[in-house]
Amino acid sequence: MTLDPVLAQIDKDLPQALERLKALLRIPSISTDPAYAEDCSRAANWLVDDLTSIGFDASRRDTPGHPMVIGHAGGSGPHLMFYGHYDVQPVDPLDLWDNDPFDPQIEETAKGQVIRGRGTSDDKGQLMTFVEACRAWKTVHGTLPANISLFFEGEEESGSPSLVPFMKDNAAELTADMALICDTGLFDDETPAVTTRLRGLLGEELTIEGPDKDLHSGMYGGAAINPIRVLSRIIASLHDDDGRITVPGFYDGVPELTNAQRAQWENLGFDAKGFLGEVDLDTPAGEAGRSVLEMIWSRPTCEVNGINGGYTGDGFKTVLPSKASAKISFRLVGDQDPHKIRESFRSMVNAMLPPDCTATFTPHGASQASTMSTENPMFEKARLALSDEWPRPAAFIGSGGSIPIAGHFKDILGMDAMLIGFGRDDDAIHSPNEKYALDSFHRGMRSWARILHTLAAHD
Amino acid sequence: MTLDPVLAQIDKDLPQALERLKALLRIPSISTDPAYAEDCSRAANWLVDDLTSIGFDASRRDTPGHPMVIGHAGGSGPHLMFYGHYDVQPVDPLDLWDNDPFDPQIEETAKGQVIRGRGTSDDKGQLMTFVEACRAWKTVHGTLPANISLFFEGEEESGSPSLVPFMKDNAAELTADMALICDTGLFDDETPAVTTRLRGLLGEELTIEGPDKDLHSGMYGGAAINPIRVLSRIIASLHDDDGRITVPGFYDGVPELTNAQRAQWENLGFDAKGFLGEVDLDTPAGEAGRSVLEMIWSRPTCEVNGINGGYTGDGFKTVLPSKASAKISFRLVGDQDPHKIRESFRSMVNAMLPPDCTATFTPHGASQASTMSTENPMFEKARLALSDEWPRPAAFIGSGGSIPIAGHFKDILGMDAMLIGFGRDDDAIHSPNEKYALDSFHRGMRSWARILHTLAAHD
Repeated sequence: MTLDPVLAQIDKDLPQALERLKALLRIPSISTDPAYAEDCSRAANWLVDDLTSIGFDASRRDTPGHPMVIGHAGGSGPHLMFYGHYDVQPVDPLDLWDNDPFDPQIEETAKGQVIRGRGTSDDKGQLMTFVEACRAWKTVHGTLPANISLFFEGEEESGSPSLVPFMKDNAAELTADMALICDTGLFDDETPAVTTRLRGLLGEELTIEGPDKDLHSGMYGGAAINPIRVLSRIIASLHDDDGRITVPGFYDGVPELTNAQRAQWENLGFDAKGFLGEVDLDTPAGEAGRSVLEMIWSRPTCEVNGINGGYTGDGFKTVLPSKASAKISFRLVGDQDPHKIRESFRSMVNAMLPPDCTATFTPHGASQASTMSTENPMFEKARLALSDEWPRPAAFIGSGGSIPIAGHFKDILGMDAMLIGFGRDDDAIHSPNEKYALDSFHRGMRSWARILHTLAAHD
Repeated sequence: MTLDPVLAQIDKDLPQALERLKALLRIPSISTDPAYAEDCSRAANWLVDDLTSIGFDASRRDTPGHPMVIGHAGGSGPHLMFYGHYDVQPVDPLDLWDNDPFDPQIEETAKGQVIRGRGTSDDKGQLMTFVEACRAWKTVHGTLPANISLFFEGEEESGSPSLVPFMKDNAAELTADMALICDTGLFDDETPAVTTRLRGLLGEELTIEGPDKDLHSGMYGGAAINPIRVLSRIIASLHDDDGRITVPGFYDGVPELTNAQRAQWENLGFDAKGFLGEVDLDTPAGEAGRSVLEMIWSRPTCEVNGINGGYTGDGFKTVLPSKASAKISFRLVGDQDPHKIRESFRSMVNAMLPPDCTATFTPHGASQASTMSTENPMFEKARLALSDEWPRPAAFIGSGGSIPIAGHFKDILGMDAMLIGFGRDDDAIHSPNEKYALDSFHRGMRSWARILHTLAAHD
């Protein structure tokens, strides 16, 4: 089966593909908010109908949370399992959006046309690049070039509570020769990428309690312990002056880059100044002596994602608060063990507590880092196919984020995963005014058409 | 004019006095929250009406903020100026209140009856002890024993922005022979007190800003500066390991206790264990080597009254926030200069800022400490009158709180002030379930009746 007419069909059908994407985007499938449960269900049904219309044996699979969507379409060649998620982030603060987040519009920007709205980049626009590539293959050749399965989740933005049980219960059906995941980004606007390493994530909520009630800082100030001060001291102690994390044993299992990796990354010509400048920063804030790419791809972190205590409204209140809390997360790399780090962190905090203070901990997820082996020749085939589509050759890159599904494919189903996506750094995912470049959407579809072609070809 | 029938009238009228207090307490005069401006106005009007009903020439004086209430009632003898405030603290967290904070109720407790609600102790219940003493004098004798003025403020809990201009503009009207202030506490449940030293207060709100928007901690974590971490490090650095404050020049003007003062305080038999145990604490948290009474009466402090940054809702969000802020206050003693300390604090913070971070500062009040000279014989007269009313003799004590009005009476109007109040350590002022003991309310009224009697008597 030839590729060129498939690419031509994608080009010709682009306006209709955009209309289909808009229809999916109009469904406010916010998974974390129970008020939108019915919308999540509608999004799942929309996908089942669309997949059925192009010949997939598609079905909705209910879970204790939002439904999964599974589709299969037989074909010769390797069995490929594509994953995406149809749920989206909340949209607050709504007043920072220029338009209704669920009324997607095409806009002209300095960098070309974009489609603006919640879920355009994360992940409805991305998952539809693959669906549209399948549609074009089917339209042109009447069949798909490979044995393709699709797996769409509706809980990715709310901690995926149903994912692991579902994968275990349906392991045989979900196992393929290779997983394909479209939830990552380009290296830069002209350079596509296969993401081969993802950081893990460990979340902890820490609450320090002191006095049994809020006190008047005049009456007790000086004599009573202040939980905000205790919490601040703990947070301040989590990094040393060189930016290294001080939790005992934290760096166990953190590998150094090989010289080959370091050389490859240096060759990428990453624009660290531009990356930081995009958010009005200038100076890398991580460990001394590390490049920015190392800081975000190959080094672990400890961040405070939220802190709260005492009076935080307008004006001033001389309260000496009874408690203070922080949400703290660690991004993990290599073989770092999130469970050991959690225990070590908790021990460190408990050892720092002054008299009369207690610490309580609430866990929020623990996933190890994923590092793909690129020895499977499919990786190089996909990289070359991407290079054919985009202005510059594709790269194997890392990602600072955490996509637990990749680890689950490996751990539960024994599958490697290729993470190929077309998002851009300025897509504002999880933020107001999220967008997806039309160029990403268009070349994304063409990229998948090329990848299916090359992966299906007999060696 | 004789005292005893006045005391009898107070005893007889107690139920009606409680009803009047409840009526005032039901008005939610939260001064710091603009949503309650109308309620502050209503509370002022209520006081004008009540004072008028007992013969005061009372008026509401509008300011750029909440109104003042002024009342005068002629009489022979010394001119006494009584001060109290009708505004109250916010009530959040509302879910920690057992009842509506603005629906005051009488409750039985292990320590006797109390009236529960916001403002019962701070300061509506206290200011009404004086009003009711005047009412009883007027009822019994048809006139007051002295030339009495009343001065009620509605911005005490929100930094008193209108106070100094108002005092300066009305200096002649507000000047008397002695100021009386009822916004302090007993030494213990059986021992009344004249408070002769108050700490000053300096408030600063500090906001640290880094990236120009909230970031995804996967994409930027490790490379981008985190304002919560910066803020925590600044807060942690404000005290050394011995609990001393590290702001340069902070201890300039902090006097050591004289041996006589130290001996007097030791004789008070202060129950430090009980004071801390009341709020489930055991270990004094202030400077090493200082007694608890020193920590709260004669040593300065630095506290964090509130902190906020990033995601603080339920669950977890891997945001790397663009900013974080804290409300920080300093209690001052002796001759510490709040303006110099503010500048020094700001310089210290700015010197600690890492690259790409800015600090903005919002001032929230700056008042020096006050120390009264007890050489004026009115002090000893009042102490003896209090001793007649309560189970144990009255003491001259210090207070950890800040009542800037005392300093203003001295600086602007040249008046000494006697701080006499009937609050108790467990009144939970500024906290949920604030209360005032009925014994404090009742003996408070009788105490003022006695004090007016003794101060009016010709030497």
